[in-house]
Amino acid sequence: MIPRGFRFSAVNAGVKSPQVKRADMGLIVCDRKAVLSGVFTRNQVKAAPVVIGEELVRAGAARAVLANAGNANACTGIQGIQDARMLMEAAAKSLGIESSEVVPLSTGVIGVHLPVDRMVSRIPDLVSGLGNDPDVFARSIMTTDTFPKVVSRTAGRSTMIGIAKGAGMIAPDMATTLAVILTDAAVSKQALDNIIKNAVERTFNAITIDGDMSTNDTLLALSTGYVTENIDEIEKGLTEVIRDLAILIVKDGEGATKFVTIVVDGAHSEKDAKKAAMSVANSLLVKTALFGADPNWGRILAAIGYSGATIDPEKIAIEISGYEVVTNGQESKGFHEDTLHSLLKEKEITIGIRLGMGPGSFTAYTTDISYDYVKINSEYRT
Amino acid sequence: MIPRGFRFSAVNAGVKSPQVKRADMGLIVCDRKAVLSGVFTRNQVKAAPVVIGEELVRAGAARAVLANAGNANACTGIQGIQDARMLMEAAAKSLGIESSEVVPLSTGVIGVHLPVDRMVSRIPDLVSGLGNDPDVFARSIMTTDTFPKVVSRTAGRSTMIGIAKGAGMIAPDMATTLAVILTDAAVSKQALDNIIKNAVERTFNAITIDGDMSTNDTLLALSTGYVTENIDEIEKGLTEVIRDLAILIVKDGEGATKFVTIVVDGAHSEKDAKKAAMSVANSLLVKTALFGADPNWGRILAAIGYSGATIDPEKIAIEISGYEVVTNGQESKGFHEDTLHSLLKEKEITIGIRLGMGPGSFTAYTTDISYDYVKINSEYRT
Repeated sequence: MIPRGFRFSAVNAGVKSPQVKRADMGLIVCDRKAVLSGVFTRNQVKAAPVVIGEELVRAGAARAVLANAGNANACTGIQGIQDARMLMEAAAKSLGIESSEVVPLSTGVIGVHLPVDRMVSRIPDLVSGLGNDPDVFARSIMTTDTFPKVVSRTAGRSTMIGIAKGAGMIAPDMATTLAVILTDAAVSKQALDNIIKNAVERTFNAITIDGDMSTNDTLLALSTGYVTENIDEIEKGLTEVIRDLAILIVKDGEGATKFVTIVVDGAHSEKDAKKAAMSVANSLLVKTALFGADPNWGRILAAIGYSGATIDPEKIAIEISGYEVVTNGQESKGFHEDTLHSLLKEKEITIGIRLGMGPGSFTAYTTDISYDYVKINSEYRT
Repeated sequence: MIPRGFRFSAVNAGVKSPQVKRADMGLIVCDRKAVLSGVFTRNQVKAAPVVIGEELVRAGAARAVLANAGNANACTGIQGIQDARMLMEAAAKSLGIESSEVVPLSTGVIGVHLPVDRMVSRIPDLVSGLGNDPDVFARSIMTTDTFPKVVSRTAGRSTMIGIAKGAGMIAPDMATTLAVILTDAAVSKQALDNIIKNAVERTFNAITIDGDMSTNDTLLALSTGYVTENIDEIEKGLTEVIRDLAILIVKDGEGATKFVTIVVDGAHSEKDAKKAAMSVANSLLVKTALFGADPNWGRILAAIGYSGATIDPEKIAIEISGYEVVTNGQESKGFHEDTLHSLLKEKEITIGIRLGMGPGSFTAYTTDISYDYVKINSEYRT
């Protein structure tokens, strides 16, 4: 089931090189002007499509999203901006809309100019191929992803879907993620902005694979507004779609063998809870211990200690997948290394941390760090 | 050559278990009251010897340093403090000094109580074995270190040596390092505090292997004060000893195959320069690229972009081991991937970053992340 008013397509455009034969350019078209919202990387080095996308989101309306994998159009200067605009114009012309209604998205290698001519030549096929399957778009934006990411929800009579690419470079502040959230629920620009911002803060900004933040991270939200529905329901549905996408991205983290949920409660504030959760999530020593099922709880405690959150070490309690490990900052009575070692062999692990300082809570999602992570990210592919 | 007034020894005390037969308890004794300074972990979860060490450094004088490997005496509560004090008392008694003149140091596993009786029983042998070789002490504090770390310098007629253990958990704010700096140069408590603080800021705080910060990080400095020398010379000598130790620790980073120096110039401020340098040094994507000699300069630029330093992306220039890679935020003219790939195969790599914003500069030291890093840190050793 897809929200009313959206169509999808993808083609091969040989973006990275003419030898690449998989679909690497995708298009989403709205059958009427959609409300547009979005959140972008906070990296000060921004790719050309991010610079343009921020402008378009401020304007607040769009009719299409034009995406490519294989080339990030980042660190490409003025020509990068011009290249993106040429693609927007070609798509607009083919669709009979304004070029300022086409939002560009790019992901891939940094510092290389887009093969604009080759891409423009494929746009007529992209437009003629539009259909009802969001999967074709999801596949066209994959890079090191091992599966396409599409999730959906309904809120009353309205529908919302999310499409994303992730994997690798999943960061404290956003994933190298292109995510597009589509809904037919009627929602104002202001309301959509607020919903997206709040949802991203507690979902995309709560995921981390390797602590890096990319030049291209973008989450867009478009509403065709065909269905009137209670705003709380809409917010709930959109937030769940965004959270589900975030979780899928973590599950597909490069070389990840485990999915880890870190729940911090009892922090002085939500901000402190987030600091503690993200510090544990980003600790390489915690991640390698998780990979090897090493019951070394001291690494978790140490990561809380340097997180910058206000803590009293003697109030900290930690449980791992329901097993009490630390009480009042020390090893819990009756703790057995072997029991924890067995629990850590599971594919899904929950680390519960109670700080005993106040009402703040936060949940972060992360993975372990494996040999394969090092392999995937160290290989020189010519 | 060692500074006047210090003696060293080490014994096996089976600290981790009676089966461990290498020297794991070490002692340094001063033949008269020494001026004591020190810098400690900023982790809020502090090991017992850190809590006690901070007190003793405030008092400012000491006669001995008693260290052990195999057990960190961290997350051990009140009993941890009592255990450390019992050891200090036993050493003091054997040496005929006050227990408040013995500075404790511990490194090793977290959350396990020290085998105090076994350790106390070895103190007479530790005292009777005192001699002139700092190497025996350096070996007794090794954990995953592959070589003992001792460096020395002279400043006029005065001598200073540094002894350290490092490897792994080398962090943005201090290494899991026990470092002891010894000198016979006469220096006041106030002057020694300032020299150590400044030196650590630009040396130990500039090294990173995995971004974690331990519960036990400690650097002590002791002066017997036998030699009067120009204070600038003394400062220079002590700073060089501390920097050389920091570099040795990075070179012995767990599983490291490369030594990487990151020089940031032209930052708005020194603080900004440090942010940019440490962000690049801590980036897992940069570290894995270095391991695989992957000429992916976009990862360096991205890490600068999310560092929090004030930058103008179009002013950034990057050179790697002298080869111009990025000019004005884009790939330099004439850049060849293969050239950079060859340079990145070297064991020692320098990444030079010019931000073009002001006079701030900072140098950071780091390593790559290898399969062996993951292996060493993920293995569950029963």
